[in-house]
Amino acid sequence: MSAMNAFYAQSGGVTAVINATACGVIETARKHGKDIANVYAGRNGIIGALTEDMIDTNRESAAAIRALMHTPGGAFGSARYKLKGIEENRAEYERLVEVFKAHDIGYFFYNGGNDSMDTAHKVSQISRRMGFPVTCLGVPKTVDNDLPVTDNCPGFGSVAKYVAVSTQEAALDVASMATTSTKVFVLEVMGRHAGWIAAAGGLAGKEPGDAPHIILFPEIPFVKRDFLRKVRQCVTDYGYCVVVVSEGARFRNGKFLADQGTRDAFGHAQLGGVASVVAQMVRDNLGYKYHYAIADYLQRSARHIASAVDVRQAYAVGKAAVEFALQGKSAVMPVIKRVSDSPYRWKIASAPLGRIANKEKMVPRRYITKDGYGITNAGRRYLAPLIRGEDYPPYVNGLPKVVKLRKRPVKPKLGTGFVV
Amino acid sequence: MSAMNAFYAQSGGVTAVINATACGVIETARKHGKDIANVYAGRNGIIGALTEDMIDTNRESAAAIRALMHTPGGAFGSARYKLKGIEENRAEYERLVEVFKAHDIGYFFYNGGNDSMDTAHKVSQISRRMGFPVTCLGVPKTVDNDLPVTDNCPGFGSVAKYVAVSTQEAALDVASMATTSTKVFVLEVMGRHAGWIAAAGGLAGKEPGDAPHIILFPEIPFVKRDFLRKVRQCVTDYGYCVVVVSEGARFRNGKFLADQGTRDAFGHAQLGGVASVVAQMVRDNLGYKYHYAIADYLQRSARHIASAVDVRQAYAVGKAAVEFALQGKSAVMPVIKRVSDSPYRWKIASAPLGRIANKEKMVPRRYITKDGYGITNAGRRYLAPLIRGEDYPPYVNGLPKVVKLRKRPVKPKLGTGFVV
Repeated sequence: MSAMNAFYAQSGGVTAVINATACGVIETARKHGKDIANVYAGRNGIIGALTEDMIDTNRESAAAIRALMHTPGGAFGSARYKLKGIEENRAEYERLVEVFKAHDIGYFFYNGGNDSMDTAHKVSQISRRMGFPVTCLGVPKTVDNDLPVTDNCPGFGSVAKYVAVSTQEAALDVASMATTSTKVFVLEVMGRHAGWIAAAGGLAGKEPGDAPHIILFPEIPFVKRDFLRKVRQCVTDYGYCVVVVSEGARFRNGKFLADQGTRDAFGHAQLGGVASVVAQMVRDNLGYKYHYAIADYLQRSARHIASAVDVRQAYAVGKAAVEFALQGKSAVMPVIKRVSDSPYRWKIASAPLGRIANKEKMVPRRYITKDGYGITNAGRRYLAPLIRGEDYPPYVNGLPKVVKLRKRPVKPKLGTGFVV
Repeated sequence: MSAMNAFYAQSGGVTAVINATACGVIETARKHGKDIANVYAGRNGIIGALTEDMIDTNRESAAAIRALMHTPGGAFGSARYKLKGIEENRAEYERLVEVFKAHDIGYFFYNGGNDSMDTAHKVSQISRRMGFPVTCLGVPKTVDNDLPVTDNCPGFGSVAKYVAVSTQEAALDVASMATTSTKVFVLEVMGRHAGWIAAAGGLAGKEPGDAPHIILFPEIPFVKRDFLRKVRQCVTDYGYCVVVVSEGARFRNGKFLADQGTRDAFGHAQLGGVASVVAQMVRDNLGYKYHYAIADYLQRSARHIASAVDVRQAYAVGKAAVEFALQGKSAVMPVIKRVSDSPYRWKIASAPLGRIANKEKMVPRRYITKDGYGITNAGRRYLAPLIRGEDYPPYVNGLPKVVKLRKRPVKPKLGTGFVV
């Protein structure tokens, strides 16, 4: 059998290291040219497959592909586009397989989170049923760290490092001025349902009294009275109070503190602004001067402070996905298995997509202190290795050097339009 | 005459490199032990002098003082505390001189911005009139870069680098997802009256179409209709729009976009939240999906991405202040003189405090593009050298290593309380 082509797409929110995974996929595929003729990348993710708008990665130099290692964002474009259930929209799945067939695509590498694993799983099933079986690999990526089975997700370590470093730095600022200025500082971080990113803020503090003094997890219902009591106690004891709040923090009744009523393409609530909600609560009830920061996209694109462990793992899952595919494995995802905490050792294994798709891994209760506002030693043991090591990008004139790919299109073969 | 002591205090908002200046002052003073017996640092800035609460820096090891080079925040504590005019509150000035006299303090190094230069200037005058002339040196520090005479201010280069890097990174994130997700991203940065920090965001873009597409300066009155037209044009032309907005952006009538009605100790409006004002304006009028980040204290404490030029200059002004004092200069401030843009060369000179105190340097109109939304080549030539070079702190377990000083108190001699 002659070599087939591969299709690679980035999906959902991008990370500081998703391109390192792309690099792992492409470089490894290039090493197996007798099995994988070419890697086509979807322009704007899966939409590029549906609309037959693919990028020919063979037209990119080895140096350009290598430079993906230190370029944040999604180099080929990513999309928040969830394929509907097969029963509701069989046409989309059939279209995918049609495009794959037209371009001799025998391998599908889908680099994303929960929703994408579900899609990859379904494409695997339907392509078989349609008589053009495609080897489908999920490749993990999510700053939220909420995929099951894998010990952690590429993308998370770097946002965790960013949040831990930023919390430590801002806390030093606040501590030095609290006598006459800001007493309460609130840092809002991502994490819609799982509080992993907020938990990482906890790494900034080592000793009792160290910031952050309060972490607000989505996993722990927010009780205003208790929170305000804790803030006042911190200001009394330490002179100031640093709060790390997850965008997904919510009241007992499940309502997000920050719910503004808008919804994204996946139907999820579009959050933002919980920091101001919390800060104003402090001002109105305790009268303290406050400041708040909202890290938003800065945290997930901060390649300049990426975790070296994260960069290595991001590359490794891309590489492993290709190797698994060539071993004939399909409908699986490379997962990270922790071998030991200290020294931190890990390896890559594979897990069936069916075990991963549409499941979310929350921060376990035993990683959260009894009062619900901090991380335990067990939580610290889990998190600490993931932010280890610095992997600085090269700089030119004071700014990180990033690669701009040529993005030459693959010539369409079907010629029929498809509206997404 | 036997050696006198020196008093050093940090004032106002701290920076990522103010401790590098402290290091410059203390290390240089230590080299001149026959002239300066000891450096006492004010705990919480000038308040430490007023309350006779000073830190004995001689009790800190050479290694601890050196580690100030990479520790953000104010190591001795800073204060937002402005001495009133001499006529209104002569008692405070007299108290300062009393404390200086009691502790044989012949040198006063005041590390701050405009207000602090005014204080240092007044202390110089009143100490002479009181028959205990103190050599008073202002030492520049402000992320706002708004001090006159000096080409730039230590602290600014690092926040400029943080904002330029963050803008570049977030823009790559937004660009890669704009087809199906966020089309408008707003980054709020500091700069109450002067738009230097916002201007630095402009360094992220090199070519037409590069982000940031819009910078909102305090110097340019905000016109909603024109702004919205520009946002729509960007989304049409590039698929997305990145906006960097200064917290001090204001309407034609002078009202801040973000004025929440609260005031700080200096009587300045406490700002925050302009990003959400701008983002909601975009949503309400154009319907685009938006995200916004508020960098707040993260930007001015981000020692992890400090500019190497800034770190060097921060040390240099501290060192020069001591050298000027020993040359018998008083009521002056070390200023940075730019010798050439390219290659960037600079030197330290001295300027009388009277020329600096209470004056603000705005971004000149010729640094801002004609339409008011970007920086010109002249602006770029000025800004670019200031973010050059990386000066990474050491790391332990994935987090920057910072020094915690012993902060041993100087034994009070006056024994009389003073309420600030």
